[in-house]
Amino acid sequence: LRFCSHCGHGLSRDIPPDDNRARYLCHHCGSVHYQNPLMVVGTIPVWQNRILLCRRAIEPRYNTWTLPAGFMELDESTAQGALRETREESGARIELGALFTVIDVPEVNQVHFYFLAEALGPDLDPGPESLEARFYDESEIPWDNMSFQTVSTTLRHFLEDRRKGHFDVHHYALPRH
Amino acid sequence: LRFCSHCGHGLSRDIPPDDNRARYLCHHCGSVHYQNPLMVVGTIPVWQNRILLCRRAIEPRYNTWTLPAGFMELDESTAQGALRETREESGARIELGALFTVIDVPEVNQVHFYFLAEALGPDLDPGPESLEARFYDESEIPWDNMSFQTVSTTLRHFLEDRRKGHFDVHHYALPRH
Ligand SMILES: [Zn+2]
Ligand SMILES: [Zn+2]
Repeated sequence: LRFCSHCGHGLSRDIPPDDNRARYLCHHCGSVHYQNPLMVVGTIPVWQNRILLCRRAIEPRYNTWTLPAGFMELDESTAQGALRETREESGARIELGALFTVIDVPEVNQVHFYFLAEALGPDLDPGPESLEARFYDESEIPWDNMSFQTVSTTLRHFLEDRRKGHFDVHHYALPRH
Repeated sequence: LRFCSHCGHGLSRDIPPDDNRARYLCHHCGSVHYQNPLMVVGTIPVWQNRILLCRRAIEPRYNTWTLPAGFMELDESTAQGALRETREESGARIELGALFTVIDVPEVNQVHFYFLAEALGPDLDPGPESLEARFYDESEIPWDNMSFQTVSTTLRHFLEDRRKGHFDVHHYALPRH
């Protein structure tokens, strides 16, 4: 951040009064420009025991397989965002289930949420962010070409809980590298 | 947002190529300025069955009782943020437990997280954001002077689960008004 988004003047880096860490401050209009972590929301859509994965058409991790997910937007809940991202990236019509994983990724200042979901049919219509979308049997999952650790760990927890016949909420943090 | 934080030029409101909603765009340097929901992280600290509440020294909801919580910062996990906020607002030394509530508040573009926590002693040292901090017995909780619905619903779930002897993760959304 170099310029104040309210008045256009140059910003400086200082600890505001009544605060305890450096922020981007505008000494012209007095505004403080906070920076905060972002949320990523997605689903684990299932059709007849098969799991929906999308092949990424965008960087980072172009051409790797992922669960449908993306940045949460204003004016939506985590569940609404997860539903929207699933529709945009795969075209799947789904019924959303419970929150399943909550994953801290402090290295990139993100928290990821994945929801259980039932596909209402096998039809898919991948959007511009996906090269391809398809349902995978557990034995076919392309583990050696997955997009992110948030996705592969969510899938492993899902398969493990499905074997147990009981889905719990899993909260964990990915280690920093 | 009126000015580009990268180059200082005026922003316009447009749908970028490959996007599907209006964003703040800089036609001078080409940057897109996204706006996203924020996370609030806090705890339910318990000492000998009594629950820690803080009386707010700041707006909004000045002088109402709250669980220690605040905005998640960069370079921390939800758990680290919850621990930091508890220390800053109450001075309590705590051992963090499991994630307990995840609450969507789409009306204000926030998601709130509360963690279970055990206080390691009765000593408190409220910071500048609290007028007072004290441990409340269940029968004394000031229900008619609570800060936010995220706090009162988290407390009700906590007391209910404590009676059951089993704490589950609770995910829900507050209704819009
Ligand atoms: Zn300014
Ligand atoms: Zn610019």
